[in-house]
Amino acid sequence: MDAQSRPVGAEETVKSSRSHLVALKKKLRAEIPATRLLGIEPARCNSGALVLKAPLAPNRNDKGTAFAGSLCAIATLAGWSAIWLALRDAGLEGIIVIQDSSIRYLRPVTRDFEARCSMPAPAQLARFLAALRKQGKARLKLRVVIPKAGTDAVTFTGRYVARLSK
Amino acid sequence: MDAQSRPVGAEETVKSSRSHLVALKKKLRAEIPATRLLGIEPARCNSGALVLKAPLAPNRNDKGTAFAGSLCAIATLAGWSAIWLALRDAGLEGIIVIQDSSIRYLRPVTRDFEARCSMPAPAQLARFLAALRKQGKARLKLRVVIPKAGTDAVTFTGRYVARLSK
Repeated sequence: MDAQSRPVGAEETVKSSRSHLVALKKKLRAEIPATRLLGIEPARCNSGALVLKAPLAPNRNDKGTAFAGSLCAIATLAGWSAIWLALRDAGLEGIIVIQDSSIRYLRPVTRDFEARCSMPAPAQLARFLAALRKQGKARLKLRVVIPKAGTDAVTFTGRYVARLSK
Repeated sequence: MDAQSRPVGAEETVKSSRSHLVALKKKLRAEIPATRLLGIEPARCNSGALVLKAPLAPNRNDKGTAFAGSLCAIATLAGWSAIWLALRDAGLEGIIVIQDSSIRYLRPVTRDFEARCSMPAPAQLARFLAALRKQGKARLKLRVVIPKAGTDAVTFTGRYVARLSK
């Protein structure tokens, strides 16, 4: 669901997410230098998904398509960033780490690319935030895709752990 | 097994691998720019394993430890490089792609790091090369670890496909 197709009433969430996106971009640039080196940055977000983008040039491989390592890196970061935004939306601050992930490379990526992390469903997100507030720690499994011409070039599933830092 | 502990008689393989390692380094630098940007390069190899290395600085995250995306990238590339070397050792040239992988982040990586890909056992390698010569295409599953103080910080399994290009 993109901004154009969003129902009236969800507008506030979108605005909030947009300001958080600027903060996310600054954090990635300042604290994860690989994002600057590889050109990975937030593209857009709404309540349905967070999208990161990267140019092909610094991420190309010996075949002229996107390097699998870069695709795994942007997917890993898309999941991490989605949780970072969810915590910020909830007024929480925490440490987020990835536990494990699996990735399938289905089709070569032949141009600049995006990694789209579906935000958890409202009920799943509510359970995650409740556990985080109660136990100071919570886990979340997220799915990320790298789309290509109406299908998925790459599918990724990552399991993340968040711990409250205050 | 490092060079010091290798039995006499395996020396020729090691020498051969060393010259291939220089070629691998050149190929990565020239054709996969992310390796230059992130400082990923071959460290050493023998018949038992191929080791890639990277500095922490360009690969650090918001916690000051190694970025999971960089760890996944170096592991992915270690498997790819091991097959590239195996093909070269066998006098073959081909296109190598990764199909899928899974990775577990067990402990934070707090300094410069290495990814160690165990070379396939001789019988497994022989089957892979025979299939490649016969069918022009063959699959190989490889395991990579990122060691830390005598244990594994990261474990990775990747499934690769090689296709003969001549």
